Amino acid sequence: MANRNAVVLAAGKGSRMKSQLYKVLHPVCGKAMVQHVLDQLHQVGLNQIVTIVGHGAESVQEQLGDQTQYAIQSEQLGTGHAVQMASSALEGEEGTTVVVCGDTPLLTADTISQLMDEHEAQNAKVTVLTTDVDQPSGYGRIVRQANGQVEKIVEEKDATDAEKAITEINTGTYCFDNALLFEALKQVSNDNAQGEYYLPDVLEIANQRGETVAAYQTANVNETVGVNDRVALANAEKLMKQRINDQHMREGVTLIDPDQTYIGPDVTIGTDVTIEPGVHIHGDTAIGSFSHIGAHSTITDATIGENTVIRQSVVTDSQVGSNVQIGPFAHIRPDSTLAEGVKVGNFVEVKKTSMAEGSKASHLSYLGDAEIGQDVNVGCGSITVNYDGQSKHKTVIGDDAFIGCNSNLVAPVTIEQGAYVAAGSTITKNVPEKALSIARSRQENKEGYVDRLNKRS
Amino acid sequence: MANRNAVVLAAGKGSRMKSQLYKVLHPVCGKAMVQHVLDQLHQVGLNQIVTIVGHGAESVQEQLGDQTQYAIQSEQLGTGHAVQMASSALEGEEGTTVVVCGDTPLLTADTISQLMDEHEAQNAKVTVLTTDVDQPSGYGRIVRQANGQVEKIVEEKDATDAEKAITEINTGTYCFDNALLFEALKQVSNDNAQGEYYLPDVLEIANQRGETVAAYQTANVNETVGVNDRVALANAEKLMKQRINDQHMREGVTLIDPDQTYIGPDVTIGTDVTIEPGVHIHGDTAIGSFSHIGAHSTITDATIGENTVIRQSVVTDSQVGSNVQIGPFAHIRPDSTLAEGVKVGNFVEVKKTSMAEGSKASHLSYLGDAEIGQDVNVGCGSITVNYDGQSKHKTVIGDDAFIGCNSNLVAPVTIEQGAYVAAGSTITKNVPEKALSIARSRQENKEGYVDRLNKRS
Amino acid sequence: MANRNAVVLAAGKGSRMKSQLYKVLHPVCGKAMVQHVLDQLHQVGLNQIVTIVGHGAESVQEQLGDQTQYAIQSEQLGTGHAVQMASSALEGEEGTTVVVCGDTPLLTADTISQLMDEHEAQNAKVTVLTTDVDQPSGYGRIVRQANGQVEKIVEEKDATDAEKAITEINTGTYCFDNALLFEALKQVSNDNAQGEYYLPDVLEIANQRGETVAAYQTANVNETVGVNDRVALANAEKLMKQRINDQHMREGVTLIDPDQTYIGPDVTIGTDVTIEPGVHIHGDTAIGSFSHIGAHSTITDATIGENTVIRQSVVTDSQVGSNVQIGPFAHIRPDSTLAEGVKVGNFVEVKKTSMAEGSKASHLSYLGDAEIGQDVNVGCGSITVNYDGQSKHKTVIGDDAFIGCNSNLVAPVTIEQGAYVAAGSTITKNVPEKALSIARSRQENKEGYVDRLNKRS
Repeated sequence: MANRNAVVLAAGKGSRMKSQLYKVLHPVCGKAMVQHVLDQLHQVGLNQIVTIVGHGAESVQEQLGDQTQYAIQSEQLGTGHAVQMASSALEGEEGTTVVVCGDTPLLTADTISQLMDEHEAQNAKVTVLTTDVDQPSGYGRIVRQANGQVEKIVEEKDATDAEKAITEINTGTYCFDNALLFEALKQVSNDNAQGEYYLPDVLEIANQRGETVAAYQTANVNETVGVNDRVALANAEKLMKQRINDQHMREGVTLIDPDQTYIGPDVTIGTDVTIEPGVHIHGDTAIGSFSHIGAHSTITDATIGENTVIRQSVVTDSQVGSNVQIGPFAHIRPDSTLAEGVKVGNFVEVKKTSMAEGSKASHLSYLGDAEIGQDVNVGCGSITVNYDGQSKHKTVIGDDAFIGCNSNLVAPVTIEQGAYVAAGSTITKNVPEKALSIARSRQENKEGYVDRLNKRS
Repeated sequence: MANRNAVVLAAGKGSRMKSQLYKVLHPVCGKAMVQHVLDQLHQVGLNQIVTIVGHGAESVQEQLGDQTQYAIQSEQLGTGHAVQMASSALEGEEGTTVVVCGDTPLLTADTISQLMDEHEAQNAKVTVLTTDVDQPSGYGRIVRQANGQVEKIVEEKDATDAEKAITEINTGTYCFDNALLFEALKQVSNDNAQGEYYLPDVLEIANQRGETVAAYQTANVNETVGVNDRVALANAEKLMKQRINDQHMREGVTLIDPDQTYIGPDVTIGTDVTIEPGVHIHGDTAIGSFSHIGAHSTITDATIGENTVIRQSVVTDSQVGSNVQIGPFAHIRPDSTLAEGVKVGNFVEVKKTSMAEGSKASHLSYLGDAEIGQDVNVGCGSITVNYDGQSKHKTVIGDDAFIGCNSNLVAPVTIEQGAYVAAGSTITKNVPEKALSIARSRQENKEGYVDRLNKRS
Repeated sequence: MANRNAVVLAAGKGSRMKSQLYKVLHPVCGKAMVQHVLDQLHQVGLNQIVTIVGHGAESVQEQLGDQTQYAIQSEQLGTGHAVQMASSALEGEEGTTVVVCGDTPLLTADTISQLMDEHEAQNAKVTVLTTDVDQPSGYGRIVRQANGQVEKIVEEKDATDAEKAITEINTGTYCFDNALLFEALKQVSNDNAQGEYYLPDVLEIANQRGETVAAYQTANVNETVGVNDRVALANAEKLMKQRINDQHMREGVTLIDPDQTYIGPDVTIGTDVTIEPGVHIHGDTAIGSFSHIGAHSTITDATIGENTVIRQSVVTDSQVGSNVQIGPFAHIRPDSTLAEGVKVGNFVEVKKTSMAEGSKASHLSYLGDAEIGQDVNVGCGSITVNYDGQSKHKTVIGDDAFIGCNSNLVAPVTIEQGAYVAAGSTITKNVPEKALSIARSRQENKEGYVDRLNKRS
């Protein structure tokens, strides 16, 4: 296989996005557009990837890190000029260079590979990725010669009526013979209305030299969608969502309504999982088989075991075991671990807390910075008082302990194995194994009080 | 009317579902596909229904119970073989037998009846249910003779180009003269590539005998959709949702966004009810007129009165009266009864509890195993301590009682009519009528404490 | 410019809505249909607007108030009769009168203005607003003369086959020379099958008089949609939602899924705001730039600052500053003010309460009728006990105060600046500056209690 490289065009500011964020950093299904492009390029198998970033685009480099090399395009002088910025990295190389826009998040490694394969098989010097659309208006049209060779790409404004009728359009993705690319770029001029250097001019230079200029037409129109404003961004999100969701359904996941199920591109899901509408699963999340994710839940960067049920809850950056029940209306915050068979019920918040097998916090509790043993029952309204106004402290609860309702465990504090905290107690000292701890006043009934009160008022 | 019977084909494992659940048990709008089919067949008025189930399909029989007879198809040897399994129940009967797939959940009783009526009116021996589609690719095509009689059904792979152009397709639903059906099935051979016995071969046998083989074409293409994988399952769900929601809208229910409103097939709803997007109403639920179901609520097996407002809440298996307000973020668990004018506010859980007219629990409470009178005010953070670590106990609160905030009612306990529990009290003994019960410590202010604390630290 | 006036037809009961609510009062995107129409008419710049209401339509007049004049149509005798009711207000006026249906909520001021401009430019006596549709079935067809002049409008039932093939339809919106309108209406008869006076008859009368009868065709088919049942109502809602959401996206708002984002017509949103699916933003709400509104949130009549994050929460009629964090599962009720940097976490309810800069209530609290200073920490489970069974009282908390977990502040009460309330305390008296206030019992550990208990039971 030839020496293969890629140039990613990511310098455009995207003024129609009306954003302070660089265009290519806008996320689609939770991942920056340019990251989608890089993820696909990494699967293609390339020697070098050079991303062209604009002046002051530190945020792009920060986000992409060392996944790619960078070249800076200080001024926005056109796509030809942008690719030329990659010359320090690529000029002089043999082989094939693919040029991809950073705002085409739907383009797949398969299509890029097919484009490069076709380019090399045809011994072409330039191969344009094209597609056929019903409404070509606004796109550059592919003008082919009788033999199928591409003669030129005509922009809408320069097109004759006959050319306007052409439905094969330029997608903005190209394959080049690397040597020819950088030679030709030196010949491209900015002698046009916008005063810009256009990459498609390389085609005409190649044609003038009598080289093969080919087109590879993909049937996957959706892959070629570019994003220029937030309407297009929403459309790209919808198409990506469909692609992701179709894949999960074909692998044995039931999505009650795939139109309203939002799953990130890196999420893995076992078979016979059911996901209800309005669910969001983001980041690096894995869900085990037979689990059920109820409507209106959001799960981010979490591992969920098998046969676990999550209802109308939020789970973030935590480990959830198998046969766990969460919600509705529960909030599992980062660094929590819920072991096999744990139950976290309604209006319960868990933060930086581990609950061992079979423990339950069924209602209205806050468990923060706690280490909870097996088969513990955390009563309704129980709170780990982990903050004293200055720092956070830890609560330890042993196996089989029973924490009474509306009790406070003022950390640092340890409730030992099998201990019992009476309802309504504020516990400030450790409770020994199997002890009952109580901290409340005796009940006094004042008879007739209500009548006396009513008389007074 | 003829003796009418049905055979339901429910033995297919559905390998493309990639599921441990039998294909026909996958739910559409909360009801198993085969149950939808049976529900429709029951409306048609049939003498016998025989469901063909696979070897080891106990789960199918368990779920369907005595709604149908069963015949076991031990090996999957084709649709003809499957129908033959019904011979013990049906062979020798006069009349008409309809054969329906258990994975066509959208087929209606109307269409089945029309098919049978047409079959009988035509004195046909076989009548295929067909429909006309834009994209016939993949389906069996209906080849008709000049007189309209069906000559044969040609599968995609066997079709000539002319036959491939036919847009009338086989839906997989058929009507047969019962006697002919079982006679012909004996002649069907498995001398084909798959080695299977095909039900459509019966058509050709009938034709060879010079019998009338007709087609009844339905305009309701959507009814004929069969489900083979989870993409098709999601599509069936969408079509069923549209059917259900259209019906409710035409009857005077406002659905702000019918695309995101999920109502089960057996739910009833009064006029002038408004249902916001993201609402799920399942099972055997009835909602009275003028009620308002706010976004992101889930209601299952509940009865809701008139003019009741439910916002972003979960209500399960409970009775809710008229003029009740629930939520947002409330959880009404099974076996609860909320009478006229009750209010259950945010972060309140009610379980196996009755609240009589006009009672309120407005914030952050848990009411479990409780019997609450009229006009009771349950203060914020109040908890019925119904579990002592070993068993559950009951709380009784009389009319007009006032339960102070953050109080615990340790069951079994009774707060009598008109009694007043002071905020922050843990009540372990009964409180007499109109008594004030208090169980808390006197407040002590330690002046200058914070400065001393800061000096120390 | 001519003297311009409008008649709004709002007397129809809308029996197909099956509602106790007058048809024109049914909301689309949270606003009554007829209010949408009036809002657009107000932008056109008219001298008088006369709304025709039915007998007993007090609810319509109540809701619209003095935005319009009214004329009563006591009996429903047709559209011509309805317009005639406006004669007391408009007869004798020179100029142009537009007649609009109150059930066409999508019609814009632009289109109405263009219709009136065209009408006046053509010196027409009547101009019909028309549009071209693919499926004209059911609509009145526009029959034009060779010169483009409108000859007549033919209803479906009276149309010849040639007329049925016409795809230009009557939208029900008309412009009239005011003098001609009221003269002609006197000539309109009810000599037809329904016994009604039809407004389109005015066209024929104008034609008989040799006047110019024109048509103005709009390309915006969606604007002309009329609502007759709740299926059409849901469709109008969908179209209005698309219009609103497209506008926000083009202005720099990211809508992850515009199909499931519900924004009222009067909401304003800054750039670089992200709104997740399942969000509802109603009424007179303004959201500042860079804010993030998480899935399943509902915001009504609220002002939200910049860079604020709201997750799965409900905010109503409140002021929320910049850099505020709310939720998930928080409820901000009316008349609350959250200043810069405030945090309101999960399962917290805030009602008629102000929180000054940097204050936090992170978990499971109720703050009602409270005035909270800066940098206050409200501990988990803290409650303002604002109701004593008879009236509501106020809680005041000074800057830098620390409210311990599960504590009750029994209002009226003041916690002064820098004071510290111990966890589990019920505070009934004021707490001085920097004092520690404590009201709880000492903890007692009863060793071996659990074993003894188990032996007993």
